[in-house]
Amino acid sequence: MSSYNVAPLDKLVEQFEKMPGIGYKTAQRLAYYVLNMSKTDAEDFSDAIREAHEKIHYCKICCNLTDQELCPVCRNERRDKSVICVVETPRDAMAMESTNEYKGTYHILHGAISPLNDIGPDDLKIKELISRLNSDVQEVIMATNPTVEGDATAMYITRLLKPMGIRVTRLAYGIPVGGDLEYADQVTLARALEGRNEL
Amino acid sequence: MSSYNVAPLDKLVEQFEKMPGIGYKTAQRLAYYVLNMSKTDAEDFSDAIREAHEKIHYCKICCNLTDQELCPVCRNERRDKSVICVVETPRDAMAMESTNEYKGTYHILHGAISPLNDIGPDDLKIKELISRLNSDVQEVIMATNPTVEGDATAMYITRLLKPMGIRVTRLAYGIPVGGDLEYADQVTLARALEGRNEL
Repeated sequence: MSSYNVAPLDKLVEQFEKMPGIGYKTAQRLAYYVLNMSKTDAEDFSDAIREAHEKIHYCKICCNLTDQELCPVCRNERRDKSVICVVETPRDAMAMESTNEYKGTYHILHGAISPLNDIGPDDLKIKELISRLNSDVQEVIMATNPTVEGDATAMYITRLLKPMGIRVTRLAYGIPVGGDLEYADQVTLARALEGRNEL
Repeated sequence: MSSYNVAPLDKLVEQFEKMPGIGYKTAQRLAYYVLNMSKTDAEDFSDAIREAHEKIHYCKICCNLTDQELCPVCRNERRDKSVICVVETPRDAMAMESTNEYKGTYHILHGAISPLNDIGPDDLKIKELISRLNSDVQEVIMATNPTVEGDATAMYITRLLKPMGIRVTRLAYGIPVGGDLEYADQVTLARALEGRNEL
């Protein structure tokens, strides 16, 4: 189904359709939304895409996204530089930040080891992690996702760091707060039982 | 929650968040997707927005979207110019086209009368519809949405056209094909009963 062969519109629909979680109907709705924007709004949108792409790059230390040399966390002198939390994506780092509990720094791998998708250790920012380890670093927290890929990545990095004498920890598995035991899957429940704490 | 104050990224997230049906989390996902695009892909996307906005305007006859003077339907000599199907949006016209049953032309109102949203007859392309009616036009099919606003708009236009001696029809109400009587609402079912046909 084409939009009557209005080429610029079809092109825009196509662009939206490529995005994750956007199907044809939604892409169409978004394209029509763009057409109904004011001229300046559409230009702002167009510029925002170009600018984000041009100005944003990786932080020299932690590989998080930033428009400056260092990201705000690495720039912040009050953050505890002796702890590094290793996450898969910038969004994972944001999720950790939103707890307001973590005062250390991050390291963004930009993915996880996944042989099925042809992603090996060399495709991740693991070299960058190793090279920033110095005598100041006391602990590396593996906060990769609780998936097969995330676990494999955590194991891989742990095996590299252990011989260097660095303490490596992993986020606790268990039932989510506010969750319902009835709906927790078996594996999670087994892990929660295994990791039970004295009250 | 901000993306660590990476200004260009926040700006892009904001842009996506304004779009219909896009919440904060989705906007974030889309913005990261844009960041992960190749440079040329991002530029193509940026250009597509700008171009669509610059090149697309209303067809001189039916007010549908087009990048030429007339839309493909109005340009097509084999379409039946004696029938005009009045719809609310370009997407409604596309939906009609996708039936492959309709051989007439369209008229796009670009909305429906809605006093609650402060949209009156003057905000729609009704003047444009009246001005294109000539002795060749035999029938106007009201295909506005089966909602209060769509019905009101159909009624309003019907009252304008009837005195001009033009046949005005409305799409049939009834149960959707493949639907389930049990789940049909009362009003639809009542209309389906009212409009029942001899077998």
